[in-house]
Amino acid sequence: MNGAPLILASASAVRARILAAAGVAFTIETSGVDEDAVKAQHPGLTPGELALTLAEAKALAVSGRRRGALVLGADQVLALDGRSFDKAESRAGARERLLALRGRVHQLHSGLVAARGGNIVWRCADSAALTMRDFSDAFLDAYLDLAGDALTASVGAYAYEEAGAQLFERVEGDFFTVLGLPLLPVLGMLRDQGVLAE
Amino acid sequence: MNGAPLILASASAVRARILAAAGVAFTIETSGVDEDAVKAQHPGLTPGELALTLAEAKALAVSGRRRGALVLGADQVLALDGRSFDKAESRAGARERLLALRGRVHQLHSGLVAARGGNIVWRCADSAALTMRDFSDAFLDAYLDLAGDALTASVGAYAYEEAGAQLFERVEGDFFTVLGLPLLPVLGMLRDQGVLAE
Repeated sequence: MNGAPLILASASAVRARILAAAGVAFTIETSGVDEDAVKAQHPGLTPGELALTLAEAKALAVSGRRRGALVLGADQVLALDGRSFDKAESRAGARERLLALRGRVHQLHSGLVAARGGNIVWRCADSAALTMRDFSDAFLDAYLDLAGDALTASVGAYAYEEAGAQLFERVEGDFFTVLGLPLLPVLGMLRDQGVLAE
Repeated sequence: MNGAPLILASASAVRARILAAAGVAFTIETSGVDEDAVKAQHPGLTPGELALTLAEAKALAVSGRRRGALVLGADQVLALDGRSFDKAESRAGARERLLALRGRVHQLHSGLVAARGGNIVWRCADSAALTMRDFSDAFLDAYLDLAGDALTASVGAYAYEEAGAQLFERVEGDFFTVLGLPLLPVLGMLRDQGVLAE
């Protein structure tokens, strides 16, 4: 293909796995963006707007340094009753998060932004609604033992593609959006940008 | 858990991967069912009914031999304009299949049946609608080189969780149903049957 090289501006291992499995060639360069500073600069955003704003900040930061590349920035925000949540930082924090989500519906908002030469060339927002089942405390403790890194690697303290699936009663929305990288829209953009064959 | 041991009566590597990733313990025992004979015994079934009938035959065949176990049988049928399709048997057959599907909508029907002691205890049918994009012949040939075993391992000649994703414009339905094992219904059944914790 004649397109620019692709850089994924995300430290997420699952995003990299999804893109690689789909047959896309890319390199990874994390942005170094201070997410708390971005949030402080943009108060009052909805969770979906916040995910897009963070994805944009990451894409533009890397695009400014790598002007010949196509840069894909991504972010995901969990919303419960309209409030946004970050990743938990510990097993105890993950336990608290899962107790807050148990028996309720939460949303995962994925934001994706592509930039080239310091300019935004594409944006995509998608969300999914997840109903967590009313699991027992014994199940929760067994899950916390089983889940390992997933507890602090994702906003919901679960990897839906792994044992996290056992937490759910119902998931409405795209699987890849739940994982943080709506794949078919990304592949369409990569074709439009000449990175993938039509 | 106090439930019976679980046997997956399916030779599909992707079904085994999905169950194992979700943290489910099981063994695999293929049924030896003659699928062509089952089809000949049940003419005139819709594609969805055929998937369930084949899943039932597989589950009952293994359950008859392993009466203390919970046996999960599964099948998937591809439908285009109401006609059912099997797996392609060669690269040439896969190319023909993909040319037939190109630019059109097809359905994947997944049928799952659980049996215990030679009796059916659970059935589940789900389907997804997939719109294949109008890709170029050059793309198709590059895809055939890339896809490898996926060409003959699945009814559509693609692994949607791998490079097969590049074939699609739109996918409506559950990701795990596309892969042939609707996961959340299976996990619910495994909890009901005492195989997984509530």
